[in-house]
Amino acid sequence: MSENLTEQTLVEFLDALSSSAPAPGGGSVSALAGALGAALVSMVCNLTLGKKKYADVQQDITDLVERSEALRGELTGLLQADVEAYMGVSIAYRMPKDTDEQKSARSAAIQEALKKATVVPMQIAEACCRVLDLCTPAAEKGNVYAVSDAGVAALMAEAALRSAALNVIININAIKDQDFADQMRAKLNGLLENKSELKDQIYDLVIEKL
Amino acid sequence: MSENLTEQTLVEFLDALSSSAPAPGGGSVSALAGALGAALVSMVCNLTLGKKKYADVQQDITDLVERSEALRGELTGLLQADVEAYMGVSIAYRMPKDTDEQKSARSAAIQEALKKATVVPMQIAEACCRVLDLCTPAAEKGNVYAVSDAGVAALMAEAALRSAALNVIININAIKDQDFADQMRAKLNGLLENKSELKDQIYDLVIEKL
Repeated sequence: MSENLTEQTLVEFLDALSSSAPAPGGGSVSALAGALGAALVSMVCNLTLGKKKYADVQQDITDLVERSEALRGELTGLLQADVEAYMGVSIAYRMPKDTDEQKSARSAAIQEALKKATVVPMQIAEACCRVLDLCTPAAEKGNVYAVSDAGVAALMAEAALRSAALNVIININAIKDQDFADQMRAKLNGLLENKSELKDQIYDLVIEKL
Repeated sequence: MSENLTEQTLVEFLDALSSSAPAPGGGSVSALAGALGAALVSMVCNLTLGKKKYADVQQDITDLVERSEALRGELTGLLQADVEAYMGVSIAYRMPKDTDEQKSARSAAIQEALKKATVVPMQIAEACCRVLDLCTPAAEKGNVYAVSDAGVAALMAEAALRSAALNVIININAIKDQDFADQMRAKLNGLLENKSELKDQIYDLVIEKL
């Protein structure tokens, strides 16, 4: 797949997603939802910068939008990386398995590809956690007129985190290197911890300010 | 805004979202996230249709994909409708208010536009509830190989529902017709009821099948 998915139109992406083609799938959607969350944090910042009413927080908001824009760029890149990692697994599974030597090479290639296909959604999960962390200052300090957008950003970031987690778990379950699998499981559990509660806190804060 | 947003590329849409332009915003994101959920249900179905292992559920899956595709189309249309409803409010606020007659006409136009801008996210919320309802049979009966995609669909549909709800609430809060506002609030509360729990049930079912 040489075409970059992020250059597809929304309609084309939705069409490709709904088809039986192996990619894009849930992994790409997790990266996209995270990027949508990051973009909404940036929007809240851009509606706050230069406004007299928010003079006291201009430096905070400048720092915030720098971080949200970096995360948006990272997640947009991870959308494509996830598709490529997934294709890598597909290609490894299609390797010949007629001789013992071929079987052994194929098995090693599958395991290597699965590790890569675990690391990419883990990177998506990490980036989504960082987007979620930005939603609290966006809701607290950003233009109150756009506070619902900070709330939508938090909902997207948390759903994206849990979506990425599902994609980490599928691949972990097929990995034979138990040290690697245990390490990934521990890392994922750390990322997920308290994130659902944080999302609910931001949602409640937004409802209060609406 | 004559250009249809769904014909923008993902990168263009994310750029427009992150800018200080009034639209697209959280409302469009809620419709898009709902459409992503519907597309993933369709994907699960398309990976199940024609597979011998799933011979017993072919008719169920045929019915399911018909419903998910209809909802995907509806939510794609609502993405654009939400932007247009939002622009309607913007235009009404910019009406002249120099004379009493102008003030009265402007106020009536604002109220009318706000009602429309409440009804569209309510339609998004309703469609997202229906997408979420399709995720249970998708996870239960669909190709187990794609069960994580049914999980991502549920996460997207529920986050999209709550995002749409935030956009309903903002507009309700500015509406003077209390009967209309109360009716909308009651309808919204009915839609939200038990949906977070349903999403968690689907997530647990998916984790079990991974």
